[in-house]
Amino acid sequence: MQRIEQHASFGGQQEVWSYASSTLDCQMRVAVYLPPQAQTGTCPVLYWLSGLTCTEQNFVTKAGAQRYAAEQGLILVAPDTSPRGDGVADAAQSYDLGQGAGFYVNATQAPWAAHYRMHDYVVQELPQWIEAHFAATDARAISGHSMGGHGALVCALKNPGRYRSVSAFSPIVAPSQVPWGQKALGTYLGEDRSAWAAWDTCALLRAATERLPLLVDQGEADEFLSTQLKTHLLSETCEQFGHPLQLHMRAGYDHSYYFIASFIEDHIAHHAHALRTAP
Amino acid sequence: MQRIEQHASFGGQQEVWSYASSTLDCQMRVAVYLPPQAQTGTCPVLYWLSGLTCTEQNFVTKAGAQRYAAEQGLILVAPDTSPRGDGVADAAQSYDLGQGAGFYVNATQAPWAAHYRMHDYVVQELPQWIEAHFAATDARAISGHSMGGHGALVCALKNPGRYRSVSAFSPIVAPSQVPWGQKALGTYLGEDRSAWAAWDTCALLRAATERLPLLVDQGEADEFLSTQLKTHLLSETCEQFGHPLQLHMRAGYDHSYYFIASFIEDHIAHHAHALRTAP
Repeated sequence: MQRIEQHASFGGQQEVWSYASSTLDCQMRVAVYLPPQAQTGTCPVLYWLSGLTCTEQNFVTKAGAQRYAAEQGLILVAPDTSPRGDGVADAAQSYDLGQGAGFYVNATQAPWAAHYRMHDYVVQELPQWIEAHFAATDARAISGHSMGGHGALVCALKNPGRYRSVSAFSPIVAPSQVPWGQKALGTYLGEDRSAWAAWDTCALLRAATERLPLLVDQGEADEFLSTQLKTHLLSETCEQFGHPLQLHMRAGYDHSYYFIASFIEDHIAHHAHALRTAP
Repeated sequence: MQRIEQHASFGGQQEVWSYASSTLDCQMRVAVYLPPQAQTGTCPVLYWLSGLTCTEQNFVTKAGAQRYAAEQGLILVAPDTSPRGDGVADAAQSYDLGQGAGFYVNATQAPWAAHYRMHDYVVQELPQWIEAHFAATDARAISGHSMGGHGALVCALKNPGRYRSVSAFSPIVAPSQVPWGQKALGTYLGEDRSAWAAWDTCALLRAATERLPLLVDQGEADEFLSTQLKTHLLSETCEQFGHPLQLHMRAGYDHSYYFIASFIEDHIAHHAHALRTAP
């Protein structure tokens, strides 16, 4: 493992690491923010999953989250959004498929299945690696944006007990029902739609046993709201199945990191509260 | 003039505009953050000058300043760092000369003199344009980073009374004495060094009549500190000539926007206080 960036930030350290992921069978970059509290003790961890076209850089350069993580004593971990490299399958003409668009699933179809196992990477390997090499406890929270909001919700719903809290900005809540998700799930999992339900937040909520509350912020001026995000499907499903949802529709806000930056303080406080509370 | 971006941000609007600058004789992009207070009244303005290789984007996407500008009711204006376009002279092989590296001077040498008049653009045309088209008062402050820190200090020192306050992160304080500055001033102003003093903070301080206090933050782990920035020349000059300087040397911090983000709240508060105080 190799540290490729290190910057002082709000009294802590913003680092970027590269290491060989066995789950993904490629080199992976991960951004890790260590708050000042990590210099003298261990801290709980918030995992952040980014959206289409993003890398490990977007969240740590644009969201302004370090300030709040430093105040609350949280480690922030932001991995890249897919496996990468010359030997990794890609769809070079598509921003919404292949490298930069892993969708946080375990692919079953060739040629994707060889590397595209982002769910297992995010849920299992990455926390193991973080907890082995950094001043991290095993108290975990997860959040993300857009495709990464989908990823955060799915990782939490598929793995009861693994996360103390979950939140999302502008998530894709029903990938089976929207073009981005249909393209990705159809490609990575095949056209048999019965396999898709295991990777679809609204489908997972129908069978959820754990009642982990969902915190979601969604901009009302989001250019993808009516076509790709369809937040109303989430609120309808949560209401129907009695799943706790704290949904904030934000007038005037769009899909950008300006939106995330404006409300990330609330999400960090939400996670910090859950992470401080005994499970 | 054309608005090419608009995003809600901390209750206000982050916009990016393009318009034809007569001073620079080219289209220029300018990022403008309008705090919530600008919806119902006029607000004072903080001008931000970015560093080498930057555009109007860097500050508004990475510094996290909108939160503090919204709290204080300041408009933030971040112009591009040089004239741009096919018809504008460039030094394509050099990151530190030509487009992206205007150095905030008025060039006198061919072919640069035709467009490279960033000082007059920043000090005269840009505020005129801002005050004509946005809910801005004529109370002005100026700040910047690296080459832009040099720009902010020089604009304030050359134009007594025009700015209520000035600050800088990691500024080039004596361009006549360091490689970045010698290359730029030699190219834009010619090799006769007597012309350089009018664009050199340490030289200007020797003759300054206005005692506008300088607020400067400088990272001690800045990779350019000993070769290009030489902050000690600023503190020595201020001490020698009795110019008020509030210099914060920050242990562990580097030259990046992670440094700026960590301390921009202090600078915004400094400017807000000065801008609220009658001149």
